[in-house]
Amino acid sequence: MDGARGCQAYVVNVSPQEPDTVWVTEIWRSAEDHEASLAARGVRELVERATPLLAGPPERTELTPLGGAGLGP
Amino acid sequence: MDGARGCQAYVVNVSPQEPDTVWVTEIWRSAEDHEASLAARGVRELVERATPLLAGPPERTELTPLGGAGLGP
Repeated sequence: MDGARGCQAYVVNVSPQEPDTVWVTEIWRSAEDHEASLAARGVRELVERATPLLAGPPERTELTPLGGAGLGP
Repeated sequence: MDGARGCQAYVVNVSPQEPDTVWVTEIWRSAEDHEASLAARGVRELVERATPLLAGPPERTELTPLGGAGLGP
């Protein structure tokens, strides 16, 4: 996602307490930028390759950033 | 936290599903940098002022970033 329009952070994390869980922290300038990134060339193929590897459907927590340090333009 | 050594992101968020909840997404270069930030001048006073406003103790999910876009040096 590096270089994807409006992508301010896309960080892959693991949890010391949940070794089988991957957390992805994404910060996007807008919902539209995020939607557009999913249509970018190759992304759908990546999602299709990754999905069978998951133990279940991804859980998603959607937040609205109010502000802070580290947010891009 | 802007300018705090090792602070790569400190984003204050709200959740459309939980209007009474504030989420803070923090990304630090190291646990030591994070600890040092808590000892910085004025931070303890801020925590003491904010704590009585909370409905309960903060919940914390600690993750280890493996990599991705938007992570600083």
